[in-house]
This record gives sequence, structure tokens and C-alpha cells, in this order.
Amino acid sequence: MPGYITRLSSRIHSLKTSALVGLDPRWDLLPAELKGASTTDTQTIADAFLRFCVEIIDIVAPLVPAVKPQVAFFEQLGPPGLTALHDIMRYARRQGLIVIADAKRGDIGSTAEAYADAWLDGDSGQAAFPADALTINPYLGPDTLQPFVHRAIERNAGLYVLVRTSNPGATVYQDRRTDDTTLFEAVADTVQSLNEQHRGNNTFGPIGAVVGATWPQELVGLRARMPNTPFLIPGYGSQGGTAADIGGAFDGHVEAALINSSRAINFAWQRPEWKGQYNDETWRESIRAATEAMINDLRTTADA
Amino acid sequence: MPGYITRLSSRIHSLKTSALVGLDPRWDLLPAELKGASTTDTQTIADAFLRFCVEIIDIVAPLVPAVKPQVAFFEQLGPPGLTALHDIMRYARRQGLIVIADAKRGDIGSTAEAYADAWLDGDSGQAAFPADALTINPYLGPDTLQPFVHRAIERNAGLYVLVRTSNPGATVYQDRRTDDTTLFEAVADTVQSLNEQHRGNNTFGPIGAVVGATWPQELVGLRARMPNTPFLIPGYGSQGGTAADIGGAFDGHVEAALINSSRAINFAWQRPEWKGQYNDETWRESIRAATEAMINDLRTTADA
Repeated sequence: MPGYITRLSSRIHSLKTSALVGLDPRWDLLPAELKGASTTDTQTIADAFLRFCVEIIDIVAPLVPAVKPQVAFFEQLGPPGLTALHDIMRYARRQGLIVIADAKRGDIGSTAEAYADAWLDGDSGQAAFPADALTINPYLGPDTLQPFVHRAIERNAGLYVLVRTSNPGATVYQDRRTDDTTLFEAVADTVQSLNEQHRGNNTFGPIGAVVGATWPQELVGLRARMPNTPFLIPGYGSQGGTAADIGGAFDGHVEAALINSSRAINFAWQRPEWKGQYNDETWRESIRAATEAMINDLRTTADA
Repeated sequence: MPGYITRLSSRIHSLKTSALVGLDPRWDLLPAELKGASTTDTQTIADAFLRFCVEIIDIVAPLVPAVKPQVAFFEQLGPPGLTALHDIMRYARRQGLIVIADAKRGDIGSTAEAYADAWLDGDSGQAAFPADALTINPYLGPDTLQPFVHRAIERNAGLYVLVRTSNPGATVYQDRRTDDTTLFEAVADTVQSLNEQHRGNNTFGPIGAVVGATWPQELVGLRARMPNTPFLIPGYGSQGGTAADIGGAFDGHVEAALINSSRAINFAWQRPEWKGQYNDETWRESIRAATEAMINDLRTTADA
């Protein structure tokens, strides 16, 4: 099987979009038909999450290259939630989607190896959770990224290292400057260097960077700093990032970035921009419409 | 129920030790009687992890205040592993142990809230995984610690924020200096400030710091910098930290720090220091001996 970037690029080129749909199920926001009676039973909630995400996958699989389940919302339910997550990931891959597990894991040595083994399935069929790629946190140091990189290369999987996150407080630690370089730029340099080692004949290597759409100026600087690094860009849509804001991520390559939207698609019928057009009974149509609207919105930008 | 620090201090004072036993089960290292036939079936491995950890808990519950399951080794097995983890955590608490989930989670906004809800049980009985405290990663920024702090306070639970980790590469990002302050000192200042807000009448607040035993000099500086912050100190034993190295963590308070040992206790009979005295059939005795040896080794230091 081809490497992560080849598989991802192929999906992006054939579907002509860099849109990434997050899977962020929230019990209080599910459509009434999936909730039935009010409950606090985690198995019931996990079953509803599974049904909801399978429906989203059915809608978006012909439209977008990839989905990004947010692991926290499944972990919140304990083992039943993680069983649902596993089944959702497997289902998404069977529908042809690339699956990026948003788990933001990070640890040292053999512990990092265990997380890598848990999530980085790639083409191996060996991981407990069948992801094509995983988000990871660099705080512990570049040596702690190595077990993830090693496993990603071995299994044709991908990584996305947190570089500049989308939250307002991202500046506090990530922007601290030593000499002429901020912390997030130092992390970016590590990631770029890893891709120079591991990209082979591809423009982009398999070790991506998470850069928030909420920081358009930093995005332009990071694209220049990391010419061989694919981006995963959260913060578009409900966090306020616009298509214009993320223009700097592409640099002429549509495969240079995935742009994520989660809540604005998952719960489109409840959002101000779609209210009046859709309701709790036409929630599927609202998810399709919001996905298509995002794709159209991004198309202008990515082509630019 | 009293707050996290009160519960922890009470255990530390009554057992007269700050020793923390990590639960890091590894299939290839389990005693033969728990492995049976060789297998790659995750349910079989998870069942063996459960039996192994329950045996360790039975040995250490009368000796040490707390245990620290390493979530990665359970996650590596997928849902069966996480079910075993849940059952191990519940069992440990029933034996009177404080349970610190070593998950190093971190994310933004409602996602951080979901992780906090998943792990920070405290005295609430509401979390999917019943931990008294959770390790968290600060890279995303101080705003992303807030949902964890909020939930910890609400549920009488505790946190341990990664400040200076025990791995060799910890220096690369964590030691970057801006003006006169390194990144890890900036994180330390955030944590100390949170404890000044939340410690009430206690010397120590519920928001701890992870500081590696492998950095004795930084440990002394951080103790001075964070007088109201309890420490969790990994890196003692198998990573090379000695009792002398961690003396700086206490500053006259035995409840000021927990010193963790995982592999050197879990797999004591296989370690050079116990070889010849114990074997695969006397593994339980080796775990007890290694725990008692650690307690004795630390006692001199903590009393100093």
C-alpha cells in the first residue's frame, strides 16, 4: 500500500477538496430521533454516537478525503465509548475515508511506543484503533516524537504534531521567543527536518503540523518555514477562521493542508447560518449542505 | 469527602512514605503463570493485565499511598485494555489507594472538558475512569488548563501538569529561555499561581507538577518557585534518579512530593538488583521486596 501522503493526496486530488470533517458527537446536541428517552447510561449514549457518526460518514464519504474523530468525546463515555470509536474508525475506512485520530498523545520512550502502536495503523491492520494518522503533542521534547515517527514510517501512517494551536491562549507558551525563534517555530523546525529525512520523492513527508486557522499571519510564516510539511488546520468555521485566513497554507498545492470543521458540520441544523432552512428532522440534509458549502468556500482559496 | 490534597496527605502521613507505584503492565515481561500460551489476542492480554495489576495492588495497598496506572499500555490493547484499566482503577480505590491516571491529556475548550470529565472522578462517582488525579500537558496554553482545574476543584480531584519531564530531550523545548525565564519555569509559575488561588487553608493546592528525578538541580529551583505545589516525580530507579537526587523536592514536607517507580517494582524479579534472589515463580515476593526497599531508600531522604 502507498504511504500516508500518497493515499491522502490521491483522495484530495480526486475529490478536489482539502475539507476535513471532524467527528465530535455531543449527547446534548444529537437529533431527537437518535436520543430516544433521556439517559445517562454510557452504553446507550455510545450506541447513539455510533449511529450518528455512521450517518455522517455515509453523507461525507463521497465528498471529502478524510474524517477526524475527536477521541475525548468517546473517552468521556469510558470503554463503551472507545468501542464505538473503534467501530466508527473501521467503518469510515471501509467507506474509503482517511481517518485521523485527534488524540493529542505524547509521552516518553516505551510509553510513546505504546501510544504509537495503539493508533498508527496505516496499512498494517495491527493497531487497536485503526487510524491512518494521529495528532501528537511535542511538549516533552523531540526525542519523544521519534517512537511515533518510527512507527508511522513502518506502517505507512501519518502524524500531525501540534505546532500553533487555534485557542486564544496558544500565544502564552508557544510564542515565547528565544533569540529570534519562538517555541512554535522551534517545533516547526523539528517537524520540517523530519520530513526532509522521510519524504522520499514526495513534496510532502508524513509528519504533519497542526496550525490554527485563527492565526493567518503565523500560517503564512509556517508554510514558508515548513515547505515539506502537510498541515492540519483546525479553527475554520465555528472558531472564527475564514477561507481567506487559511489561503497561506496551500502555496499552490491542494494537498498541502487539510482544513477541519467539526461542530459547524456535525450540528449544522442548529447553527445560525442554517436555521430556518433545516430542523431536527432534516439534520442529514443540513450536514450535506454544510459540507458542500465548506467545500465551495475552500475551493476559491485552494485554487488561488 | 475531603479534597484531593487532604486525602493524599492523610495516606502519606499514615503510611510514612511518598512512594508511588506505577502500573505499567507489559505482555512480554509478565510472569509465566499469567501468560499461559503465547497469544496476540487483546482480550487475553487485557485479562492478564487485570490479574497482574490486581496482584500488585494487593501487595502494595498496605505499603504506599497511591498507584499510577500508565494509560498507554492499556490503550494499546484497544477497548478490552481500557475495560481492564477501568476495573483496575476501581479495585485500587476499593483497597484504599489514591489513583493517579497517567494519561498526559491536553486539548482546548469543550474537548478539554470532555477529558476532564472522563478522568477526574475525585469523590463524585461520575467519571468514566475513576481517578483521583490526572496528568495533563500544558503545550496548548494556560487557558486549556482551566477546564481541568474547574473540574478538579468541583470533584475534589487533583492534577499534575507536566513541567520538567524526565527524558533526556526534555531540555530542547522546556529549557528555552525568554528573558530570564525558561518555558518550564513559565509553566511552573502558572501552576503555582493556580495553587495560590485554590489551596484554601492547605499548604499545597490540588494542581501538582510533574518534575523528573533526573534533573536534581532544576528540582531544587522548582521547589523554591512553587512552594504550594505538590510534585509527582518520575525517573527514580530505572531511569537513573536516586533518593539523593530527589531530596530537593520535599523542603521539610513529606506530602510535598510523590516519587514514582514503575518497572523497577512491576518487574523486580527480572532486574539486576534482585536477580539470584527471586525468579519467575517468586515474582510476588520480589514486588514486595522492591517496594519495601524503595520506601526505606526514600525514608532517609524525606526525613532529611
